[in-house]
Amino acid sequence: MPDKEIVEKILEKAAAEGRSSLTAPEGRQVCEAYGIATPQERLATTADEAVAQALEIGLPVVLKIVSPDILHKTEAGGVLIGLETPAKVSEGFRTIIDNAKAYDGDADIVGVQVQRMLSEGHEVIIGATTDPTFGKIVAFGLGGVLVEVLKDVTFRLAPTTTTEALSMIDGIAAAEVLKGVRGAAPANREALAEVIHRIGELVTDFPQLAEVDLNPVLATPSGATAVDVRILIDPDAAHEPVRFGQEEILASMTRIMKPAAVAVIGASAEAGKIGNSVMKNLVNGGYAGEIHPINPKAPEILGRKAYASIADVPGDVDVAIFAIPAKFVAAALEEVGKKGCAGAILIPSGFGETGNIELQDEVVAIARKHGVRILGPNIYGYYYTPENLSATFCTPYDVKGGVALSSQSGGIGMAILGFSRSAKMGVSSIVGVGNKADIDEDDLLTFFEQDDNTQLIAMHLEDLKDGRSFAETAKRVSAKKPVVVLKAGRTSQGAKAASSHTGALAGNDKVYDDILRQSGVIRAPGLNDMLEYARALPLLPTPRGENVVIITGAGGSGVLLSDACVDNGLSLMEIPSDLDAAFREFIPPFGAAGNPVDITGGEPPSTYRNTVALGLEDERIHALILGYWHTIVTPPMVFAELVAEVVEEYRAQGIHKPVVASLSGDVEVEEASEYLYQRGIPAYPYTTEKPVAVLGAKYRWARSAK
Amino acid sequence: MPDKEIVEKILEKAAAEGRSSLTAPEGRQVCEAYGIATPQERLATTADEAVAQALEIGLPVVLKIVSPDILHKTEAGGVLIGLETPAKVSEGFRTIIDNAKAYDGDADIVGVQVQRMLSEGHEVIIGATTDPTFGKIVAFGLGGVLVEVLKDVTFRLAPTTTTEALSMIDGIAAAEVLKGVRGAAPANREALAEVIHRIGELVTDFPQLAEVDLNPVLATPSGATAVDVRILIDPDAAHEPVRFGQEEILASMTRIMKPAAVAVIGASAEAGKIGNSVMKNLVNGGYAGEIHPINPKAPEILGRKAYASIADVPGDVDVAIFAIPAKFVAAALEEVGKKGCAGAILIPSGFGETGNIELQDEVVAIARKHGVRILGPNIYGYYYTPENLSATFCTPYDVKGGVALSSQSGGIGMAILGFSRSAKMGVSSIVGVGNKADIDEDDLLTFFEQDDNTQLIAMHLEDLKDGRSFAETAKRVSAKKPVVVLKAGRTSQGAKAASSHTGALAGNDKVYDDILRQSGVIRAPGLNDMLEYARALPLLPTPRGENVVIITGAGGSGVLLSDACVDNGLSLMEIPSDLDAAFREFIPPFGAAGNPVDITGGEPPSTYRNTVALGLEDERIHALILGYWHTIVTPPMVFAELVAEVVEEYRAQGIHKPVVASLSGDVEVEEASEYLYQRGIPAYPYTTEKPVAVLGAKYRWARSAK
Repeated sequence: MPDKEIVEKILEKAAAEGRSSLTAPEGRQVCEAYGIATPQERLATTADEAVAQALEIGLPVVLKIVSPDILHKTEAGGVLIGLETPAKVSEGFRTIIDNAKAYDGDADIVGVQVQRMLSEGHEVIIGATTDPTFGKIVAFGLGGVLVEVLKDVTFRLAPTTTTEALSMIDGIAAAEVLKGVRGAAPANREALAEVIHRIGELVTDFPQLAEVDLNPVLATPSGATAVDVRILIDPDAAHEPVRFGQEEILASMTRIMKPAAVAVIGASAEAGKIGNSVMKNLVNGGYAGEIHPINPKAPEILGRKAYASIADVPGDVDVAIFAIPAKFVAAALEEVGKKGCAGAILIPSGFGETGNIELQDEVVAIARKHGVRILGPNIYGYYYTPENLSATFCTPYDVKGGVALSSQSGGIGMAILGFSRSAKMGVSSIVGVGNKADIDEDDLLTFFEQDDNTQLIAMHLEDLKDGRSFAETAKRVSAKKPVVVLKAGRTSQGAKAASSHTGALAGNDKVYDDILRQSGVIRAPGLNDMLEYARALPLLPTPRGENVVIITGAGGSGVLLSDACVDNGLSLMEIPSDLDAAFREFIPPFGAAGNPVDITGGEPPSTYRNTVALGLEDERIHALILGYWHTIVTPPMVFAELVAEVVEEYRAQGIHKPVVASLSGDVEVEEASEYLYQRGIPAYPYTTEKPVAVLGAKYRWARSAK
Repeated sequence: MPDKEIVEKILEKAAAEGRSSLTAPEGRQVCEAYGIATPQERLATTADEAVAQALEIGLPVVLKIVSPDILHKTEAGGVLIGLETPAKVSEGFRTIIDNAKAYDGDADIVGVQVQRMLSEGHEVIIGATTDPTFGKIVAFGLGGVLVEVLKDVTFRLAPTTTTEALSMIDGIAAAEVLKGVRGAAPANREALAEVIHRIGELVTDFPQLAEVDLNPVLATPSGATAVDVRILIDPDAAHEPVRFGQEEILASMTRIMKPAAVAVIGASAEAGKIGNSVMKNLVNGGYAGEIHPINPKAPEILGRKAYASIADVPGDVDVAIFAIPAKFVAAALEEVGKKGCAGAILIPSGFGETGNIELQDEVVAIARKHGVRILGPNIYGYYYTPENLSATFCTPYDVKGGVALSSQSGGIGMAILGFSRSAKMGVSSIVGVGNKADIDEDDLLTFFEQDDNTQLIAMHLEDLKDGRSFAETAKRVSAKKPVVVLKAGRTSQGAKAASSHTGALAGNDKVYDDILRQSGVIRAPGLNDMLEYARALPLLPTPRGENVVIITGAGGSGVLLSDACVDNGLSLMEIPSDLDAAFREFIPPFGAAGNPVDITGGEPPSTYRNTVALGLEDERIHALILGYWHTIVTPPMVFAELVAEVVEEYRAQGIHKPVVASLSGDVEVEEASEYLYQRGIPAYPYTTEKPVAVLGAKYRWARSAK
C-alpha cells in the first residue's frame, strides 16, 4: 500500500514554496512511498561519517556535494563516483568539500550525499506524463541510444494493470535485450512491471504531478531501482474534461438516431439550397417519422406544412437539422432547446474551423443550458438507414447493412459514401462529426454498441477531444464489435529534438498507436484500408484459432500471399502429416502440399472444390486464403461459383470459417471477385495484399476481443 | 596500395595446410596488408620483454597465452585485460604462464601475446561474405544489441566505392549514434568507409575468402581499428557464373523480340490445344512476319502451310515456340538449333519445377551447343506489341504503350494481363520467364534498355539466377528508364513458399533490398503496387526538384495526403510568403494557404483552375498533388475537365510537372478519375494513398537516376 501522506506533505511543501518541481531527495521519497526502490543514501557532514555510512549502505558509493548555493555540482567538482574503499571515501569527502569552497567561498555547505553506486543491470526509462489528448499516460523504453535515437518506447493509459505493464516490456522493438543477450543477465520483468504499475497509480492519485521521469531505472535479475528521479508539478495537469454518463449519452443518441419527429430549420423549396436538399433526402429517402419544415416565409415545403418557428410545431421534436447560416444558429438553437429537442444537427460552417471559436462556444453553451446535444457544426449531416433517415444535403444511401461509419471531414465523408455505393457495402449509418463541438466519437460508439443494426464501426478522425474517454469506451465496445479507426495526421507532429524526457517522447503518433491498440481498436493505415476493412470484416466469421492455410492454383500467388501473411501477423499452419496426405490425394504428384497447398495451374474445378472442402472440413484449420489462377480448364466464374457453393454447404452445416480470395487472371476475374464478395467471401482481382490484409484485420480484432 | 603478396603467401600456407580459416595473427596481417588498422601486438617470452613491449605499443594492454595446445585461453586463465602499469604487466606475465602450466603441464608454451587494449570508441561490425545470389557482398552495422536484436545492418555489392560505403554508414537506422549522442565522441565516418571499401577490395582480389568478419571495429574521431578478425576460406567461394556479353545478349534478344519468322512446334488445328491457341494468337494478333506451323500430320493450319519438321521450313527462322510435351522437347530443340533459331520459347511444364532437373539441364546443354537462347520452360509465352506478336496461349493484348513487364510465375502473368487490360495500360511487352533455365531478367533488361518502344520495365521475380549481373545491368538501365521490381518471398514464410515453388534458394531479404536500391531499382511492396507504378510512372514527367505542393478542396484529404507524403519520402514545400500571398488571392479568407493549400469545399471551378495554374506556373513548385471534394458547385467531371485542360495548356508551353489526384466523392468520381488518368494525370477515387505512392515511386527513380 502506498504511503500517500508522505507524498501529500511533500507536495504541500512544494506548493507552499511555489515550486514547479521536486528536489532529488523529495523525488526519491515519493518513489519510496510508492514502493519503488531507489539507491540507498545518507547525508554525511564529516569524512568519518561518510565512511561509516558508505560501509553501512555498501561500497562502491557516489559522493555529491549538498548545497543550496551550488546548482551545477559537476562543474564545482562536487561529484565523485565509483569510490570503492573506506580510504577513498574519506579522501573523496575532503576533496569535494575543498572543491566546493574553492568554487564558491560563500556557499552554504550542508554536507555530502553518500549514495550507493549501482552499475549492474539494464538501463531502462520509466515515466509518466500528462498528454493533452489522453491525460495521464505511462511510458517505458530502454535507456541510452535505443530510446533517444530509435524512439523505441511504448505508452499506455495510466494506471496500468501489471499485465498491461508486462505487455509494454514485451512490446518494445528491443524487448529481446531485457532477456539478456550476449551473456548479459536478464532483467526482472515482474519488478519492472511493478514499477510501471506504481508510477501509474502515483500520477492517478496525484494528478498535479505533470511528469515523472525515472531515468535510468536499473533492472537486474533480482529487481529494479530508480537511480534518478525527476518530478514536475503543475496544478493544471489535474484538469479533467467534463463527461456525460453512459445512460445520458445513450438516451440522447437514441432519440437522435431514431427520431420520431425531425424539424429542418431553414427548410427551402428552392432547388440547390441546402435546406431543400435536406428536405428532399428526408422525404425521398423514405423516413417514416414526422418531418417539419421550419421557414417563416413558406406555408408548406415538399407537401409538408411549414412553421415559422420550431416553437409552433405541435408535439415533440427529437432532432432539429440546421440549414441556415452560422450567424442565425444561436437564436434558432435557443428555440430548439426550449422545444426539448435531443439533438441539433449543425450543418452550417463558419464556426471553429474558420476561426470563429467564440460563436462555437456560445452555441455549445446554449445547447448545454437546454440539454441539447450538438452534432457538428460544419458537417454534411448523418444517415441512419434502419430508419431510412438521410439527414444530409448529399444524396440518400439505401444499401442497408451492418457498417456504421463516421468522418471528421466532409471530404472523407463523401469518399465513404462513394466507396460504399460503388462496393454495394451494407451500411447502418454514416455520420459527419465535423468540428466536434459536442458529440464526438465516444458518443457514437456508445450508441452503436447497443445498436443491433450495427456490426462494425469505422471512424475517420484527426484528433480526439477526450482521448481517455474514447479509449475507455472503445475498449468496452470493441470487445463486442470491431472498431476500425483511420487516424489522420499521423505524421504531422514532425521531428522533435532528441530527448529522453517522457513529455518529449510522448509528443508523437506512437501514443495514439499504443493506446488505440490497448483499446482493441483496429487501426487502418490509410483511407482505402479503412473502407476495405469496413466492407470485409462483417462478412468474415470470427476465426477460432491461428491456423491459416493458403490453397492456390498459382505457385507465384502462393509466395506473395505468404509474404502478405507475415506482413499482417498471420500464422501459416504447419500442416500435420495426415492432413498433408489428405491434401495430396487431390493434387497432382508435382503439386506441393505443405502450406501453401499448391494445387498447380492446370487443374479442373474438382481440385479446387476438393481442397477447399477439406480446408473447411478439417477442424485444425481455422481460416482459408485462396489463390486463383485463370485457366481455360477452370474459368473465373466456374471457380467463383464452386467456391461460393462449397462455402455455403459448410455454412449450412454450421461450419463458419473466414475465407478470402485473390484472383489472378484476365478481366473476367473482376466479375468473379464481385460474385464471391456478394456471397460473403472477400475476393479481389490483381492483388495478393488486400484479401490477406482484411483477414489480418479480422484476426487482430478476434485476438483482442476474446 | 594493398600488399597482395603478403595475403597470397598466407593463403598459400593455409591451403597447403588444408585449413578453412586463418589464425588470428594471420587475419590481422591480412588486414594490415590492406591498410586496415589492427591493435598493435607483440610476442613476449619473458616478463621483462612483455613490459618493454607494453611500453612500446602503449598501455593499457591485454596479455594472452600463446600455445598450440591451449585452445580455450580464458578457461586456462590465459587472458588478462586492462593492465595499466609496467608492474601489472610483469606480474600478469607470470600469472598467465603459471596458470597455463597448472592447466596443462605438457603444453608447449610459445609465449605471451601483448596487445594494445582499446576501450574507447563505437563498436561497429564490418564484414564481407559470399552470397549465393549476389556473390561478394559487404556488410556494416553497429555492434552489440543493435545488430543482434534489431538486425540494424546494411549490405552492398563488393567492392564498394568509398561514397557507397558512406551511404551504408548513413543508411542504418541507428546512424545518428555514430555522430555522437549523449556526449559520446563521433566516429570518423571516412575512416569507417575506408575499411568497408578495403574489405570489399580484399574479397574481390581473393575470392576464395568466403567470409571476413571484423567484429568489433572500434571507431573513434580519429580512426577505426579492427579489434577482432575472423577469416574463412573456401575455394568454392571463388566460383563465378557464366555470363554472356552484352552484344551477344542484345543480338539474340532482338531476334527473339522482333523476329522476321517464327515456327510453332506442335501447332494444332484442334481448338483447346495449346498449339492451336498459340497459332490463333499469332495470326489473329496481327503479327506480320512469317508463321510456320510444325506438325507432321497436317498439311496446313489456320491457312498456313505446315511442315513435318522445322528443318523443312524454307529460309531462316528466328524463334521456335514449343507447344509439345516436355519429353519431346530435347529432340525438337536439336532441330531448332540446327536451323539456327535465336530463341526457343519453352511453354511446356514438366522440367525443374516438377523436380525434373536432369531434363532441364539436358535441354539447356543442347541450346548452348547451338547458340539458342531458351525462354522458360514452364511459361505462358511472351508478347511484344510493337510487332503485334502474341507468342502465347493466353489471349492477345492490343493496347500499345511503353510498359514492359515480366513475371516468373504464370499466375502473376495473368494478373498482369488482366490488370493491364482493365486499366487500359499501354504495354510494349509481357514476358513469362518461368524456370529461367537460360534467359533471365538481365537479358530482358538489356533488350528493353535500348528498345525505344519501352519507357519502363516492371518485373515480378522470386529469385535471381545471377544477382550480381542483374544488379549491374539494372544500375545501367535504371539510369535511363525506371525499373520496378516486385520481389516475392520477402519474408521467411514467403521465402519458404518460394523454395517449394521453384526450388530456388531464398536469401536474406535485406540483402535484396539494399542491393536493389543500390542498383536504382524501385521496389514495389506488393503486386498491386507494381502494377500501379507501371501504369502511372510513364505518364508522370520527371520532377525537377523536391518541392511538392498539395492543393485540396477537402481539408481532411489534405491531412491524409500529407501523411502519405511523409510515408513516401516526399517533401512538402515550405511556401515562401509571396507565393502564399499569391495562393490567398484565389481562396476564401477562411481557407488555409501554407501547404496543403486548402481552397475549402464549396468553391467554384475557377478556384481549382486558378490555384492549379499557379502551381504549374511557379517555377519553385516541382510537383502537384490534388485533393478533390465532390460538391454541387464543382461536380467531378467539371473538376476532371478543368484539370486536364489546365495541365494541357502548360504542357503546350513546355511546362511539364507531375500532377496526381485523389478524388473524394460519390460514384461519379470513378469516371472523373478515369478521365484524368487517360490524360496523363494519375487519379484515384476513394484513396489518398495511391496517388501519393505513385508520385513517391517516380521521385525515388528521379533521385537515383540523376
